[in-house]
Amino acid sequence: MITPPSPEVRSAARERLDALAIPRGALGRLGETAVWWAAVRGHATAAPPSNVRAVVFAGDHGVAAHGVSAYPSSVTVAMVRAFVTGVAGVSVLARQHGVALRVLDLGVDGEFPDLDPAIGAYKVRRGSGAIHVEDAMTVEETHRALEAGRRIAAEEIAAGADLLIGGDMGIGNTTPAAALIAGVLGLPAAEVVGRGTGIDDAALARKIEVVEAALRRAGDRVKDPVELLTALGSPDLAAQASFLAAAAEAGVPVLLDGVISVAAATVAEFLAPGAKAWFAGGHRSTERAQWRALEALEITPLVDVGMRLGEGSGAVVAVPLVRSAALLLSQMALLEDLM
Amino acid sequence: MITPPSPEVRSAARERLDALAIPRGALGRLGETAVWWAAVRGHATAAPPSNVRAVVFAGDHGVAAHGVSAYPSSVTVAMVRAFVTGVAGVSVLARQHGVALRVLDLGVDGEFPDLDPAIGAYKVRRGSGAIHVEDAMTVEETHRALEAGRRIAAEEIAAGADLLIGGDMGIGNTTPAAALIAGVLGLPAAEVVGRGTGIDDAALARKIEVVEAALRRAGDRVKDPVELLTALGSPDLAAQASFLAAAAEAGVPVLLDGVISVAAATVAEFLAPGAKAWFAGGHRSTERAQWRALEALEITPLVDVGMRLGEGSGAVVAVPLVRSAALLLSQMALLEDLM
Repeated sequence: MITPPSPEVRSAARERLDALAIPRGALGRLGETAVWWAAVRGHATAAPPSNVRAVVFAGDHGVAAHGVSAYPSSVTVAMVRAFVTGVAGVSVLARQHGVALRVLDLGVDGEFPDLDPAIGAYKVRRGSGAIHVEDAMTVEETHRALEAGRRIAAEEIAAGADLLIGGDMGIGNTTPAAALIAGVLGLPAAEVVGRGTGIDDAALARKIEVVEAALRRAGDRVKDPVELLTALGSPDLAAQASFLAAAAEAGVPVLLDGVISVAAATVAEFLAPGAKAWFAGGHRSTERAQWRALEALEITPLVDVGMRLGEGSGAVVAVPLVRSAALLLSQMALLEDLM
Repeated sequence: MITPPSPEVRSAARERLDALAIPRGALGRLGETAVWWAAVRGHATAAPPSNVRAVVFAGDHGVAAHGVSAYPSSVTVAMVRAFVTGVAGVSVLARQHGVALRVLDLGVDGEFPDLDPAIGAYKVRRGSGAIHVEDAMTVEETHRALEAGRRIAAEEIAAGADLLIGGDMGIGNTTPAAALIAGVLGLPAAEVVGRGTGIDDAALARKIEVVEAALRRAGDRVKDPVELLTALGSPDLAAQASFLAAAAEAGVPVLLDGVISVAAATVAEFLAPGAKAWFAGGHRSTERAQWRALEALEITPLVDVGMRLGEGSGAVVAVPLVRSAALLLSQMALLEDLM
């Protein structure tokens, strides 16, 4: 069950925002973010996030072998290594903003015998099924992935997280993400499929066909979250969805990333209605599915610079804006102090 | 004379951007900003800005007494004190991002006998003329304001600035800013006038009339930058314009703020053609005049969260994004390193 963020604190924060020595509304979306932050932290002048923790959920996707991606699955393995050595985009941004970052292999189609075994502690399987012709995984695997997400959230919360971020790595992952969003929101494939890492028109048409076939195959199973994830998801997406739902259940706020993270948030809201009140939007990606899903979640993201890197990078890049929002609301003069 | 940022370094930076282990273009505008930063700093892997310095140019405006603003001029005096005590919006943001901030009284209609006299070292006059009925200042005052801007830039550059920001404080200042943009770009008043701090429809109509009358009064004088500033500007706007031009002349990059800063940048480009290559956009304000002027400068801002606070706040809030851009380009893995 989700306890909503405090309506009393939200009101007090809005009252303080309106009493600041600025024209009403002059902080724009930073003002709205400050009110959200106050509500989720339980104080009108809550300190800015100081223990931000991001988890990258890595996994491969059967559809990648079916012409929907510009890159082969081998890139997923290489990128997991890039996270470990700190040279991925989100690694650079996490260092800049003091964000704790860890990468977990939920379903990579490869092994990492030379790396810390903790990376694979929650591995569910190697790669997912190609969702247009078969289920992504078994119901039992979905349950294991959901349980993994809950345990990962509990670990990060035990480490003191005051803001959580879910990132992703996995060639082909925008296809199941689009399918999940279409499945939950009842949208046709053509409205949710985008170019991902940069596919051409032919691959885009193929990707729409794949999502259409996947949705047709799933049928009414999309009405149950476990069946939805089993048919159309993947271990990494299921784990991120329950990670986000568990954060909301524990009353820990979340900053969303791009289409994968927002697909997970859409499923989290399905798993745990009301979870979305604990989520804020990091960035607007270039994927249409993300826009539609953010609309459904009633979330407007903070950063809109045309990024489409995944990894949680669009959320981490927005962390200083959440901090700005909190600092402005708590440290600026009130009109009555100045006059 | 303006020396353009190095085209060789720009090419080298773009080549590096395209060689990163990411899908082409996946960093969006952060990638473009990284290339700009490399070019203005002269290294493809230039360090991020570490000595960012912001100057708030304060001044009052004769038009404020003529129904164009939601606030009285007395607010300018109170806000200068808020900068000094560190409780203004930009003060909070500058502390967050380690930005050196100083406020200078170029034309406030008040005195600060109890404050550090350095604040008034460049004061040109108390308030400007109401531009719809009289010149903002004399030609001699315009020259003094321009000289002040150059000296202030020289001081900040001598202090080691690697990125400069011009901010503003002054009730009524969106009216002369709109008039300057209209004057330089040849636009009608209705296309540049916005709601500033939040005026109602009647005041908006009045503000359009004021800008129309000011442009009619200025006539062909808008074709000369000194006459333009004398007729339609103010000491603070003239000083910020020459501050920005002097930064470009010295090869020091600038991050622009909202409508006032972008009006000053428009005049800076008029004073010193080519200056705009040294400017990047901090944020998109809610003022239409800023959008039109940014278009003319061929600059797309980084942050778009509906802020309309002025003070340089929209530039300072974007500083971490410029730093992200530089860090990503210099620290991320190249594809050849991973494969």
